[in-house]
Amino acid sequence: MKQLLLLSNSTMRGHSFLAWPEEHIKTFLGSEIQEILFIPYAAVHIAWAGYKKAIQKRFDEMGYAIESVYDKGDPVEKIHRADAIVVGGGNTFALLYHVYRYQLLKPIQERVAEGIPYIGWSAGSNLACPSIRTTNDMPIIEPPSMDALNLIPFQLNPHYTDFVQPDHGGESRDDRINEFLTINKDMPVVGLREGSGLIVKDEHIQLVGNNPVKIFRHGEKPLETTDVANLFPNFRIFLT
Amino acid sequence: MKQLLLLSNSTMRGHSFLAWPEEHIKTFLGSEIQEILFIPYAAVHIAWAGYKKAIQKRFDEMGYAIESVYDKGDPVEKIHRADAIVVGGGNTFALLYHVYRYQLLKPIQERVAEGIPYIGWSAGSNLACPSIRTTNDMPIIEPPSMDALNLIPFQLNPHYTDFVQPDHGGESRDDRINEFLTINKDMPVVGLREGSGLIVKDEHIQLVGNNPVKIFRHGEKPLETTDVANLFPNFRIFLT
Repeated sequence: MKQLLLLSNSTMRGHSFLAWPEEHIKTFLGSEIQEILFIPYAAVHIAWAGYKKAIQKRFDEMGYAIESVYDKGDPVEKIHRADAIVVGGGNTFALLYHVYRYQLLKPIQERVAEGIPYIGWSAGSNLACPSIRTTNDMPIIEPPSMDALNLIPFQLNPHYTDFVQPDHGGESRDDRINEFLTINKDMPVVGLREGSGLIVKDEHIQLVGNNPVKIFRHGEKPLETTDVANLFPNFRIFLT
Repeated sequence: MKQLLLLSNSTMRGHSFLAWPEEHIKTFLGSEIQEILFIPYAAVHIAWAGYKKAIQKRFDEMGYAIESVYDKGDPVEKIHRADAIVVGGGNTFALLYHVYRYQLLKPIQERVAEGIPYIGWSAGSNLACPSIRTTNDMPIIEPPSMDALNLIPFQLNPHYTDFVQPDHGGESRDDRINEFLTINKDMPVVGLREGSGLIVKDEHIQLVGNNPVKIFRHGEKPLETTDVANLFPNFRIFLT
C-alpha cells in the first residue's frame, strides 16, 4: 500500500522544530518502523550533516533511529534498504537537483510503490508532486528537469497563504497558482496552509492539522474545504 | 554603446500603469527612436494581444509607435529590424520559455551589443541577467535552460522587499537571496525595490527612482546604497 504523509511545513513560527506534526508522524510511522532514511538535499544554509543532527534529535525523541542518505555508502542502495523515507524542507530546486544527481528518482518511486512510508514537508512535499512547478522557492540551482516523484495526481503548494503584502505590486500566492493553472489546465493545485498536511494511503486522502486546504482548479472558484476524501475520484487511476 | 533601462516594476500599487517610470523611459529612449518592439511573452493571465494594447496606449502617449514581436511576421527578423526592445513583466519562466521557443536569445544579445536600447521591467529585467535564478516567480513552465541574456554581470531581484510576513514560516526574500549566494558565490545580487531601476550605459550604472538598492554578495553584509556607479569595477570585462 502506498503511504504518504505530506506536510506543509515542519515548524510553526515561534514553536520548536517539528513540534506540530510530531503526533502525526508517530501515528503514521507506527511502531513497526525502527529506522528512517533521511534525505537532507534541500538544505542550503546549513550543511547536510548539521541538518541530519537536528532531525536525529527529534526522531530519537519519537523513538526512531535515523540514517542519512548522505552518510558513507551508496545512496541508491540505502533507498533499496530503507524502511521509511523522510525528505526535509529547504530549497526545492536544490533538493531535486541532488535527487537527479544521485539518480534517486526511480529508486524512491519503486520503494514507495512497494509500500514503504514516505514523509515530506515543504520541499519534501513538493518532491512528491508530478513536478516542482508549484514551489514557492527561488530557482537558485537548475535541476535537469522539473519533473518530480509523481506520487500524487495533483500539485501541492506548501506554506500556502492568502496573505497579500500591503502596498506591494508583486504577485500574490493566488496570482501565482492561477498562472500555473492557466498553463497547466488539467492539473489541480492543493494549497496546504502551515500546520496542515495530507495522509495519502493508496487512493484515500485524509487531512491532518487544523486548517482547511484550498483547492485550485482551472476555470473554477478556489474551494476551501476540510473534506479531502472525495476530492480526486480518479485518484486510483493515477496511482497504478 | 550598450544601453539598458532595467526597472523593478511597471506600476506602483494604486497608481496607473507605467506611471512612475514614464519620465525615465522618455529620457532613456530620447527623441530619435520612433518605434519600439514589444516582447509580451511574460503575460500569462492576459493574452499577448491584450498586453500589446495596454502597452501601445501608454507608449503612444509618450510619443512612440509600437510593434509586437508576436504580430504577423518572423520574430527574429523583427528583432533584426528593431530600433529599441521593450520586454514587459509577468512570469519570468513563461517569458524565457518563449524566448527560447522563438530562438530570440542570440538575436537580442546581438542587437543590444550593437547599441539599440533595451527596456525591461520585472520579468523583463530578470531576462537581462546572466540567468533567471533570482526571479520571484513560480516556475509554472519549464524553459530549456535558466540561462538568460547575460547583458549585465550581476543578478537583479525585482520587486525587492525586506518585508517579512508575520507568523509565517516561509523564507523571506533575504533568505532566498542568501540561498542563491550560498550556491552561486561569485555572483552579486542587486535587490531593486519597487519604484527603482538601473540605467546601464556600457560600464556605467545609474540609479533611477527614489529608493536605494540593496547589494548582496556572498559572505558580506548586504549593502543599502544609492551609489551604484562604482559597484562593479570589473563591469567592462563582462560587457565585452
